[in-house]
This record gives sequence, structure tokens and C-alpha cells, in this order.
Amino acid sequence: MAREGESDISNLVDRLAASSVEHDRIQHLSSTHLPNRDVVLWVLEQLHGVLFPGFFGARDLTEENLREHMHGLLEEVRGDLESQIAGALRYHDETPARARDITGAFLDRLPEIRRLLSLDVQAAYDGDPAARHTDEAVLCYPGVRAVTVHRIAHELLKFEVPLIPRIMQEWAHAETGIDIHPGATIGESFFIDHGTGVVIGETTVIGRGCKVYQGVTLGAKSFPKDERGRLKRGVKRHPTLEDDVTVYAGATILGGDTVIGAGSVVNGGVFLVQSVPRNHVVQAPLVEITLRDRGLNSQ
Amino acid sequence: MAREGESDISNLVDRLAASSVEHDRIQHLSSTHLPNRDVVLWVLEQLHGVLFPGFFGARDLTEENLREHMHGLLEEVRGDLESQIAGALRYHDETPARARDITGAFLDRLPEIRRLLSLDVQAAYDGDPAARHTDEAVLCYPGVRAVTVHRIAHELLKFEVPLIPRIMQEWAHAETGIDIHPGATIGESFFIDHGTGVVIGETTVIGRGCKVYQGVTLGAKSFPKDERGRLKRGVKRHPTLEDDVTVYAGATILGGDTVIGAGSVVNGGVFLVQSVPRNHVVQAPLVEITLRDRGLNSQ
Amino acid sequence: MAREGESDISNLVDRLAASSVEHDRIQHLSSTHLPNRDVVLWVLEQLHGVLFPGFFGARDLTEENLREHMHGLLEEVRGDLESQIAGALRYHDETPARARDITGAFLDRLPEIRRLLSLDVQAAYDGDPAARHTDEAVLCYPGVRAVTVHRIAHELLKFEVPLIPRIMQEWAHAETGIDIHPGATIGESFFIDHGTGVVIGETTVIGRGCKVYQGVTLGAKSFPKDERGRLKRGVKRHPTLEDDVTVYAGATILGGDTVIGAGSVVNGGVFLVQSVPRNHVVQAPLVEITLRDRGLNSQ
Repeated sequence: MAREGESDISNLVDRLAASSVEHDRIQHLSSTHLPNRDVVLWVLEQLHGVLFPGFFGARDLTEENLREHMHGLLEEVRGDLESQIAGALRYHDETPARARDITGAFLDRLPEIRRLLSLDVQAAYDGDPAARHTDEAVLCYPGVRAVTVHRIAHELLKFEVPLIPRIMQEWAHAETGIDIHPGATIGESFFIDHGTGVVIGETTVIGRGCKVYQGVTLGAKSFPKDERGRLKRGVKRHPTLEDDVTVYAGATILGGDTVIGAGSVVNGGVFLVQSVPRNHVVQAPLVEITLRDRGLNSQ
Repeated sequence: MAREGESDISNLVDRLAASSVEHDRIQHLSSTHLPNRDVVLWVLEQLHGVLFPGFFGARDLTEENLREHMHGLLEEVRGDLESQIAGALRYHDETPARARDITGAFLDRLPEIRRLLSLDVQAAYDGDPAARHTDEAVLCYPGVRAVTVHRIAHELLKFEVPLIPRIMQEWAHAETGIDIHPGATIGESFFIDHGTGVVIGETTVIGRGCKVYQGVTLGAKSFPKDERGRLKRGVKRHPTLEDDVTVYAGATILGGDTVIGAGSVVNGGVFLVQSVPRNHVVQAPLVEITLRDRGLNSQ
Repeated sequence: MAREGESDISNLVDRLAASSVEHDRIQHLSSTHLPNRDVVLWVLEQLHGVLFPGFFGARDLTEENLREHMHGLLEEVRGDLESQIAGALRYHDETPARARDITGAFLDRLPEIRRLLSLDVQAAYDGDPAARHTDEAVLCYPGVRAVTVHRIAHELLKFEVPLIPRIMQEWAHAETGIDIHPGATIGESFFIDHGTGVVIGETTVIGRGCKVYQGVTLGAKSFPKDERGRLKRGVKRHPTLEDDVTVYAGATILGGDTVIGAGSVVNGGVFLVQSVPRNHVVQAPLVEITLRDRGLNSQ
């Protein structure tokens, strides 16, 4: 029996080896340039420690030891991030030398990312009557978690780093149920409450002070195709929210030309494929619900 | 080049240190009272072993070794939970001494939590035709997982423990896509099927024998503000479901005064901001859908 | 004080031991046949390495060392999977001997699973204008992740293995927000975009080349009960999609007799409980939205 099992495995290995040649789209042999997801996520975790010192990562930080701690952390992040970017850039046939420049330029953006995140945390506290302290927003809110990863991934995407921003984003999506494409442009003081099911597409533009609730889609109406019938990649397909727009749970806003004017509110469940002027409320007619007696004896 | 990189990092550390002073909302230096998420989640995992012995945690349990095993487990949980609660209580300027009392009182509730969970598991099996065995409900159902964490977190919240119940709940939210605020009051034999996208707000009250499906929101209509325009925290903002209410997928029920009477059913996708008497079915009018021929040659 | 704590714990252990007898549905003592979730998920991870060599698992694979690597991996998977299946089969009072046959027959299906996954990855790239490379689909797309686990779990379910397919599926559900019952039958070149909130029920049948977006439910209308009022398990309760059907975000399609004809499109948010002929578009009437001026001074 053991012998039979052995020859079964050998036969299976033959077929899988043949399959790896025939269906080579889902193998990645003899190639070194694939970013390592574990290392990318390790970098992301360290960046949380840099951006929220004392909240994530080392817990014994003081104003005295902060600088030395940061220094060590950033040295490590720089080395690992640069090697991952160097690998990813080969998708674009770019030299590893550019990885060094990109890594430096990205790290240089960290203070600005911190400034934005501080405003996002305040917006989360201000927007949620169930919040008790801004620390709760930092430690617990999936919206803050997803926006933190987005602000990191978006900077890397601006430097045209392949794959790594998407690996970071999909980690955040798995953690939070919030799916923000790293290409989306999001202004300061942004808050997503609850968040499960939120989808924000690649070419979305969001102004300052916007709020979005669970189940909101900012998506594409239909996908433009080129003259050969292939999807066009890179066209603006997703909507624009101007400043101080609120979109309540389950609303869907579609289209690259759809602009929601500053200060406007889109009510829950609304399906919207047209622009809205400033300072308006968009509402669907209240559906006449029907009550039908179940015909049970009252208890 | 290495020298340049070095001075870049030093310069960046200076700017991040300045940022940590300027944007101090997202740092937590020289402070010890922050609960440790890793320890909180470790306690939560051990509590699963206490509540479902043989299913989670140690797998070699018998009726003979159960008591000794439980004893050791509870000693460990008590120590770690007490230290975490002591830290969290400093948000309220309370003394660590109260942490000991709360921990004891919380542990004392575990047999009652077990009684409730046993009924929840039976409700899950009874409510799902795809279930093959109650063991499947214990091991696999996200609804059972989320309700287990809720029943633990809710007890801690009743003792006014800050932050720790929210850390537990957001872990369950990340695992299951089900977002139940620890403040919600939920009666026995509760079942959530599939669950992704469910949101149950802080002041929701749910009776016995209720069932809720994926994408259901039990939420707030709008947020009352105080005379200074700040959100009021703690007011009843979320609905009440009496006993034996079923809410099908994607329905939204809003408002602190909205009461769904015992035995009533809210159909899928209904948007409801008003109360419903007992034993009724709430339905939206069936929307007249349109079929449009795509004009393709039939294949 | 320590003494008091000690006697409290002893008293609590007594009550929990009594509770484990009284509420025995949620304990699993003196029993060895429960599958071990950690081992099941370890097997699932190794299978990812077998199906996507070089993408998951070992990263230094070449065409030269692939066969030796596969051989070792498959030997390990076979041993662990067989022992888990042997445990699970005791739910059916089956002998462990059958576990060996099932494991061999399952592994024999791996090349066919690879063929299907290669087509799924191509469908993901073809269907998403934000995709830059098929590698991105393999590494990042939650839809590809969920369908990979489904194709593995579905094969195990066809051999009537209890519990293990459900453990695998709920892991994928937790990772992706996509809930596909392992019983569902899904044709080749299937793509789920974004995916959070998708529910595909146990008796769903999906043809070739279908696409489904976030928040889609393929569900049951109501649950048929037997003459004793118990839920009937196993009846076809979920819809059928023929080939090349697209279902946009948030649509709900219910019922075991509901058939969506080949080439048809169900628009976003449509609620559908009836069949649709081939090559049609199903749309809800565009709801007349209302714009209400918020009465703010224009800024």
C-alpha cells in the first residue's frame, strides 16, 4: 500500500509539473523579482510604530528615548522597503538604483502623513457619538486603520511602485472590509464609520472633511473599452466628492463625471449616477412599506 | 552615499520628533495605562477555551482532567485580565484596586455566559438548513463567533471598563465582518447568518429568539446634539427588536424610538424608520423590474 | 485576599464543570474525532504552494527543483489531510480506511483545480481595468483567494467529507468577506470583484464566464420544512446562473427555481425572485431622487 501511495505521488508530481508549464500564469519559477508579502506587511507594521509611537510597536517610549528608537526603526524600514521596491520595479524594467531614490522620497513624506492621520483621528472622534476618547479611534476604529494604510499605499503609488501598494491595501481590506484602491485621492479629516463593504475606486477624488458609512460604493458606471475591445486602464471612472460631503450607509455613487458638491449629503441606500450641486440633500422617495398581519394568535 | 542616507534619516527623525509634539493626539509617550491589545486578545482566546472546553484551546480534555485544566486557565486569565483592566481604568481616574473587584465579578458571570452561548449555538443549527451538526455551528459560524465575543465584551462594558470591550469587539468585527457595539443588549437564542456587513449600534435592544441576516443595519436616524452643537453621547439612538423578530438580508432599521413588535418579520432590503406592531410582515412593494433584450444574436 | 481569590476560583471551577455537563452542546470532552482547525489551515496553506508554485510557499523554486519540492510537499499534505479526514469521517460513523481513499482521490484532482484557477486568474485580469498584471490578481485579489479555497473545499465536499470544507470556507470568508458555501457548483473563468458581502448559497449553480460584484446575494427565498416542521436540508434552494452572466453590486437573486439565462446582466441593487431569459438586462426603474437645498449660506 505504501508503495502504491508512493507511485501515486510520483505520478501526481509529473502531472503537476506538466501543469506548471501548460498553465504558467499561476506559477512563478526561476524568478526573483516578486515582492515578498511577509516583508511588505512587516514594513507596514513598523510604519504604524513610526506614525503612532507608543500606540503600536514598542510600548516603553518616552520623549527621551523616542529619537533613538525612531532612528533604529527607520534604518530597518529603509533597508527592507528598498529591497522590496527594487524587486517590484523590475515589472517596469527599471533599475534597482531608482528604488533607493523612491524609498528616500517616500520616507520624507512620513511627517506629512502623520499630520493627515492626526486630523483623521480627530474626525473619527467628532463624527461618532459612541466614541469615548481619541485613543479609542486610534486603537479600535477600522476606518482609521484603513485610511492609515491608504495614506501609506497612496504615496508609494504616486512614485509608480508596482504591486506593493496593492498588497498593503488588500491586507487592510481583509482586516477591515474596507476596499480603498491606493490610486484614490483623499483629502484631510476623512472618516469612515463601521466600514464593512465600503468600496472606493481607483480614480475617486475626495475633498476635505468628508464622511462615509458602511456599504458605500464610489464606483464606475461601465468600463470604457479601446478600439480593440479591451478595457481602458487609467481613465477617470469614479466620482468626485467635494469638501464636507457625507454619504450614508449603502449609498452607491457611480461615474467619472459625477461630482457631489461641497456640503451636500447623500442619504442611505440612494443610487446616484448624476452630479449634485453644493449644499443639497439627495434622498430617494420614502418607499410605502406594507404591514401584513401574519395571522397568528396574539400571544 | 551611505553618509547621505544617514543624514537623511537623522533629519527625518528630527521632523518626526517635532511632529510627535505638534500632533500629540496620535502618540502615547511616557504613559503606561494603555491596554495591551495582544494581552487582551490572548485573554479572549483563553476565555474561548473556558466557554467551549475541548473545542478551543487544549484538545485532550476529559471529564477527569477538566477541573484541573480549568483551574490553571482561570488563574492565568484572572492575572492578565486584572492588569489590563487596571490600566484601562486610569482613563476614568479609578484606582487599580477596583480592577480586582471587576475581574472577580466578571469571571463570576462565565457560567451564565455559557448558558446563553449554548442556546445561541442551538439557534444557529435550527435556523440554517445548510448546517449538518451543532459542532459545525461552534467551529465555523461567524455569527456564533461574533455573538460569543459580544457576550464577553458586553459584561465588561456593564462594569464600565474602558477600551477593552471595544478592542475585543473590533477583533470580532475584523474576523467576521459583524460589527456589534459592546453596549448592545441581546437576549438569548440569537442567530446571525452569514453576517458580513451587519451593524448593531450601541443602544440597540434585542429580545429572545431573534434572527438577523447579512448586511442588516440596526442604526441611528441622526445624532442628537447638545446646546453647544456637540454630539450627545449615551442617548438611545438605535432600535428595539422584541422577541422572535426576524430581519432579512440588507434591511435597515433606524432610530431609538423604533420598536419591532414580537414575532414580526422585516423583509430583505426594507428601509424602516417607524415602529411595527406584533406579528406582522414588513415588505416593500415589489419593484417592477424591466427586461431589456441585449440585441445579441442568440448563440 | 489571595486566599479569597483562590476559593473564588475553586467555586467557579465547580460551577463551570457543572455547566459543561448541563450545557454539553458546547463542550467536546473525551473525544478525539474533532478536526484540528490549525492542521486543516496548514494543509490549505501548503495546497496554495502546490497550486501556485513560486507565488505562495517556497520562493526559490526553479524548473529544476520543482519536482523534488512538490514531492515533499505532497507527502506532507497527504499525511496530515488523511488524519484530519479520518477524524471528520467519524461524524458519519465511517472507518478511517476510507480516509486514505478519499485523500488519494482528492489529490488526484489537483491538476484539474490548477487548470480552473489559471482561467479564474485570467478572468480577474480581463474583468478589472484597475489590474496591471495577472500576478496582481494572484497575489492580491480577494476574489481569486476565495475561489481558490472554494475549488479545494468543493472537491472535498463532493467526497462527503464532513466539517473540513466548512472550516476552509469560513477561513476564506474571514479573510475576504466572501461567503461561498462549499456545496455551490461554479464553472470555469469565474470572477468576483471587490467581494465584501458576497453570499453564494449551498445549492447555487454557476456556469462558465460569470462575474459577480461586491454585496451580491445568491440566496434562498424561504426554507422548506418537512411534515414535522423541521427545516429540510439538501433541497435546491438557491438560483442558477447560466454561462456569461454578470451580476452587479448589491443585487439579490433568490430561489431554487430562479434561472438567469446565458449572457444576461443583472444590474446593481436589483431584487430578483424570477427567472430571466438569455441575453437580457434586468434593471430596476431609476428611482426619482429629490434634491433638497440645505438652506445654508453658500460659502
